[in-house]
Amino acid sequence: MTLTEFDPTRLEADVVFLCQEAGFAMTHARELTKRSKVIDLSADFRLKDKETFAKFYKMAHSDPELPSVYGLPELVDRDLIADANLVSNPGCYPTASLLGLVPLVAAGLVTGAVVIDAKSGVSGAGRSRKETEYLFSELDGGFRAYAVTGHRHAPEIAQMAGCTIRFTPHLLPIPRGIHATIYAPAASAPDLAELYRDFYRHSPFVRFVDTPPNTKQVAGSNRCDIWATFDQDSGYIVVCSVIDNLVKGAAGQAIQNLNLILGFPETSGLPTNGVWP
Amino acid sequence: MTLTEFDPTRLEADVVFLCQEAGFAMTHARELTKRSKVIDLSADFRLKDKETFAKFYKMAHSDPELPSVYGLPELVDRDLIADANLVSNPGCYPTASLLGLVPLVAAGLVTGAVVIDAKSGVSGAGRSRKETEYLFSELDGGFRAYAVTGHRHAPEIAQMAGCTIRFTPHLLPIPRGIHATIYAPAASAPDLAELYRDFYRHSPFVRFVDTPPNTKQVAGSNRCDIWATFDQDSGYIVVCSVIDNLVKGAAGQAIQNLNLILGFPETSGLPTNGVWP
Amino acid sequence: MTLTEFDPTRLEADVVFLCQEAGFAMTHARELTKRSKVIDLSADFRLKDKETFAKFYKMAHSDPELPSVYGLPELVDRDLIADANLVSNPGCYPTASLLGLVPLVAAGLVTGAVVIDAKSGVSGAGRSRKETEYLFSELDGGFRAYAVTGHRHAPEIAQMAGCTIRFTPHLLPIPRGIHATIYAPAASAPDLAELYRDFYRHSPFVRFVDTPPNTKQVAGSNRCDIWATFDQDSGYIVVCSVIDNLVKGAAGQAIQNLNLILGFPETSGLPTNGVWP
Amino acid sequence: MTLTEFDPTRLEADVVFLCQEAGFAMTHARELTKRSKVIDLSADFRLKDKETFAKFYKMAHSDPELPSVYGLPELVDRDLIADANLVSNPGCYPTASLLGLVPLVAAGLVTGAVVIDAKSGVSGAGRSRKETEYLFSELDGGFRAYAVTGHRHAPEIAQMAGCTIRFTPHLLPIPRGIHATIYAPAASAPDLAELYRDFYRHSPFVRFVDTPPNTKQVAGSNRCDIWATFDQDSGYIVVCSVIDNLVKGAAGQAIQNLNLILGFPETSGLPTNGVWP
Repeated sequence: MTLTEFDPTRLEADVVFLCQEAGFAMTHARELTKRSKVIDLSADFRLKDKETFAKFYKMAHSDPELPSVYGLPELVDRDLIADANLVSNPGCYPTASLLGLVPLVAAGLVTGAVVIDAKSGVSGAGRSRKETEYLFSELDGGFRAYAVTGHRHAPEIAQMAGCTIRFTPHLLPIPRGIHATIYAPAASAPDLAELYRDFYRHSPFVRFVDTPPNTKQVAGSNRCDIWATFDQDSGYIVVCSVIDNLVKGAAGQAIQNLNLILGFPETSGLPTNGVWP
Repeated sequence: MTLTEFDPTRLEADVVFLCQEAGFAMTHARELTKRSKVIDLSADFRLKDKETFAKFYKMAHSDPELPSVYGLPELVDRDLIADANLVSNPGCYPTASLLGLVPLVAAGLVTGAVVIDAKSGVSGAGRSRKETEYLFSELDGGFRAYAVTGHRHAPEIAQMAGCTIRFTPHLLPIPRGIHATIYAPAASAPDLAELYRDFYRHSPFVRFVDTPPNTKQVAGSNRCDIWATFDQDSGYIVVCSVIDNLVKGAAGQAIQNLNLILGFPETSGLPTNGVWP
Repeated sequence: MTLTEFDPTRLEADVVFLCQEAGFAMTHARELTKRSKVIDLSADFRLKDKETFAKFYKMAHSDPELPSVYGLPELVDRDLIADANLVSNPGCYPTASLLGLVPLVAAGLVTGAVVIDAKSGVSGAGRSRKETEYLFSELDGGFRAYAVTGHRHAPEIAQMAGCTIRFTPHLLPIPRGIHATIYAPAASAPDLAELYRDFYRHSPFVRFVDTPPNTKQVAGSNRCDIWATFDQDSGYIVVCSVIDNLVKGAAGQAIQNLNLILGFPETSGLPTNGVWP
Repeated sequence: MTLTEFDPTRLEADVVFLCQEAGFAMTHARELTKRSKVIDLSADFRLKDKETFAKFYKMAHSDPELPSVYGLPELVDRDLIADANLVSNPGCYPTASLLGLVPLVAAGLVTGAVVIDAKSGVSGAGRSRKETEYLFSELDGGFRAYAVTGHRHAPEIAQMAGCTIRFTPHLLPIPRGIHATIYAPAASAPDLAELYRDFYRHSPFVRFVDTPPNTKQVAGSNRCDIWATFDQDSGYIVVCSVIDNLVKGAAGQAIQNLNLILGFPETSGLPTNGVWP
């Protein structure tokens, strides 16, 4: 195979993956979808409200009318993804948060603003971020919150969950893994294990587990492990949801989406077991 | 100095520190306070409600009437500590949580159940815990919640804060440090920097900082660094509070209490600066 | 499949893996080899000199005459392994050390006692070691040598390399990975890349690389990456050899040996690529 | 105090510390020593052979005749340092290596080229190094050698030890700490504990310990802990020497040198105890 310069008017492929900075996909997706299915891993088509997009990504959207489907197969009709010309693939925080939260919203249990206290491994920042704060000695042995007053993933989570959220990301001194601790105000709760297991009965990568999961147990896999309990005294349902941000954080569901588009089994090419330790 | 067997009826000292398992202090404190001031670092006298104590510590209290003062100088009248015969010294999670939360409660801002999402370094478990789960290879590179359905420090925090709380501890893959992220429902909020700085104007170890603090910046010190913001959209005041659990987590305020009892400056023998990195 | 009690006189299997403490294999291997091929991952048959065995493992050998083949396919005639009734499978330090050192010895380059400065991730100690020294907080952020005056793997390495060695193990604050830095006294050296690449031309898991390898680059794989240089001024050939002790440290070559015995491709079921980061 | 631009012709101070890149001290030291004592923490005056300097630092020396004293008080006549106008302060690898090696050389025990296998925490690279390879996710959980074919500290160690050395640095996934494992060929060895304790009887920061030291046990202190043994079989004396590179790696002995110059006790302002864990 020969690498050639990118030319959207001549590119021939069944499926095209776009993995570029914000602004790239909105410029080229319309042309590419004439001949190919497109799976976009950037944020360009994730937010339906283009004013919110402009505010959080500091640019106007150049193709706001192009139709797209949000590519999280566990929460979106898989047929819609299979038939879409443009799939907008979610990233790490929304995946871990939404897989933990949406079953509660769908069951009508949530009565107020939801707290999502999220913790991410450092690879979530990307390998090109070379500021002092990402150097080994600055991070090892420490822990802190960041972007508390506004993170780009907050409106995306709110949009897809359909409820008000308070989203706080933190930086874990580990290379990979996301842990979202979700606090959903609720008046009561049914059997949560049953609720989650039923909700994800057709989703091979999501598992409701018996004890609060460790990010390590899904490392290297496309799995999302979830555990939940209802704290009657405080009136919060507490959910712990973990993924490996380098797999189920974006690349993994991109492969799931590819499998759906091409009619392959959804698990093709994707590991279901983590590596320990 | 010669080490002798412990005999509370003959021990001669101005101040006695007790650092034993639950059940020890309640057995010996009454006798010891006849001749000495006692600073107890165990949980025996922290909970006023002895039924709650029995439930969480699995033992009846043998001396429920003995008076004691909760030894967190930043939140308790320092004269009470100076004059007390028995000081009940708080531990790590309550210290980080209460220093972050109490100023909001005192200002009448909190309108509902407060979420405390707390993260602790591994030394918080103590050095004698040799279960598999505390081995290096089990913890390094991972993160998880634990004791989600009930932790001994939850009723202590609720008692001292005077409000309902939802407390979730997590285990950080670092040796030392605690980070409490606190979500207090509120209708509105004043200037939080001003509120905290005023509240702690006489407390040399507590500092309101300009950005979310890193646990590393207080490592090795007796400091508590706090940052807060009000998220109007969700209606939560978000507070980040960090301490080094091996200093301000118990031993540090024990020295503060000693200083108050003996009339020394409160900062005597206590480091105010952390070690970086 | 039903788990039944271990009975060597009735066990029916093409190949039996033994993964027990020292003393077990020597007791049962003779009986088992009557009906099965046996791959033993313990040390029982690694040392030819039974006095050395007795000294380092604190027990007399109960079956010193039973023939066995040392199961490191890269350094032993693969036909011998394929035909053996009992394969004595090497462990982590000898694998990393021997793969780095033997090509130099075979080429007649080594002129004196070889220094092997080895560093291992903590999982090398095993999961059942629950002494204080293996707790997270004791190891994270530190580094030390251990067993400097005598480690069980030293005589095994010397026996297989056929030269005098000085072996010093150290404990790395990482879960998995071994790095052996080898210093072989030599009067001169040929092109080392060529020497190693030729030596391992039939060994798909060993690779001579262009820069000193990182243990991370082989994590999760059965690979051994090697780099070497000759320091003319000091008269030492310096070799860096890395493996993942949890794969190529024992289990990986056990599968290689199984593949050889059963006539499968040597790489069957074994990952050749590591996971990063 | 007011910060002013650096002007060596007008600077008035008893002692001046220089902490700049190579090339700075050689330009300004002569002028500065007219009015002040100078302690230079750069490499400019460490190498006596200016051709070696030019080779390793890629620049000609502009003031090769200016006299200086090597500022490692444990190995240099303290009166020379106290009286010097210019003290050339050593860095991290030479300090850990020389303190471990020189007593053996001084005792006439070393019979050949010495192997120094050194391991450093990441802060040794400095905080301004923002290449990808120093990012957290690249380093955490891994270990590798670097600069194997030539490191700037090798000629400095050889010069001060007075013997041929083979120096190999490695990068440890920890923020601070250096561990040098030294292999000195020797025909025989006396009681090494006695030899080292006698050698350092006037050096309060160097301690011969009973077991191989952990870098953590000296973290935050100006100490160097050393342990050694003679391996008769291989003919190497093995020495383990640890320091905290952020204290005894340069800044600590700079303060020691200041104390000697000003007539203060050598330990003034320097911590002798490490922080654990």
